[in-house]
Amino acid sequence: MKSKLLLILLSATLAGTATAQVKPEDAIKWRQSGYGFMAWNMARIKMNVEGGNYNKDEVIKAANAIQAIANSGMGALYLPGTDKGKGWEETRVKPELFTNKEGVGKVAGAFVKEANEMAKVAATGDAAAAKEQFGKLGGTCKGCHDDFKAKR
Amino acid sequence: MKSKLLLILLSATLAGTATAQVKPEDAIKWRQSGYGFMAWNMARIKMNVEGGNYNKDEVIKAANAIQAIANSGMGALYLPGTDKGKGWEETRVKPELFTNKEGVGKVAGAFVKEANEMAKVAATGDAAAAKEQFGKLGGTCKGCHDDFKAKR
Repeated sequence: MKSKLLLILLSATLAGTATAQVKPEDAIKWRQSGYGFMAWNMARIKMNVEGGNYNKDEVIKAANAIQAIANSGMGALYLPGTDKGKGWEETRVKPELFTNKEGVGKVAGAFVKEANEMAKVAATGDAAAAKEQFGKLGGTCKGCHDDFKAKR
Repeated sequence: MKSKLLLILLSATLAGTATAQVKPEDAIKWRQSGYGFMAWNMARIKMNVEGGNYNKDEVIKAANAIQAIANSGMGALYLPGTDKGKGWEETRVKPELFTNKEGVGKVAGAFVKEANEMAKVAATGDAAAAKEQFGKLGGTCKGCHDDFKAKR
């Protein structure tokens, strides 16, 4: 861990940002971690909106986690050289993610928008509204996966 | 994915909570994901407070992600039967985590407190205060790892 951080500290910063170059395998692992943690929170929201036993606090915690991850700037983890490689597992990113900037911007923007809205709706405790918003949010996950994530 | 969610929906809820039983391997993977994503964000904050090039927005995004994950209720992922098993990798949790409830409560409470404070301090943009708070937050990570995470 220490040597990893040292590497981060020593490496050059990218143009105009404080994003440093990290090891490709770390970048892949970290982004897979973000999606993996969101998967839990999506499952929790789904259970609450479809299970007939709505727990407002659970949905708020889940929606807040998704919102914070969505707004964390994960795009910085798609560094050059991370189109192939293994984090927790082999990356399933499609090459298009690195070339179709307009398409990526569109799906990423939609995702962030609906994640922010999900957190807002969760805070109200309105189960029906949460269910509807969960559908919209899930649609933006799928939209990105369809275009930019390879199927197994 | 569909069958996993179905399993969640069909399974019994635990006493008094909306936490459903999930597959042990999913619970382990999801908690490893949470820690993995926090590792990125800790690395980002470290880079900013030690790198001599403080980017307020980067630190805010990172601190907010850590805060939301810290407050997400990850404890629910330490289900009975997840003391051994493989998520992304074999779990490194020590058996003590499942027996020493008081000790776990203490380190978890300290972590959540310092994660909340980190987000507050980050919002001010005060680099020196962020550096100090980063040290405190990192101390709570280490405190838990020392007691409840096996070394490689």
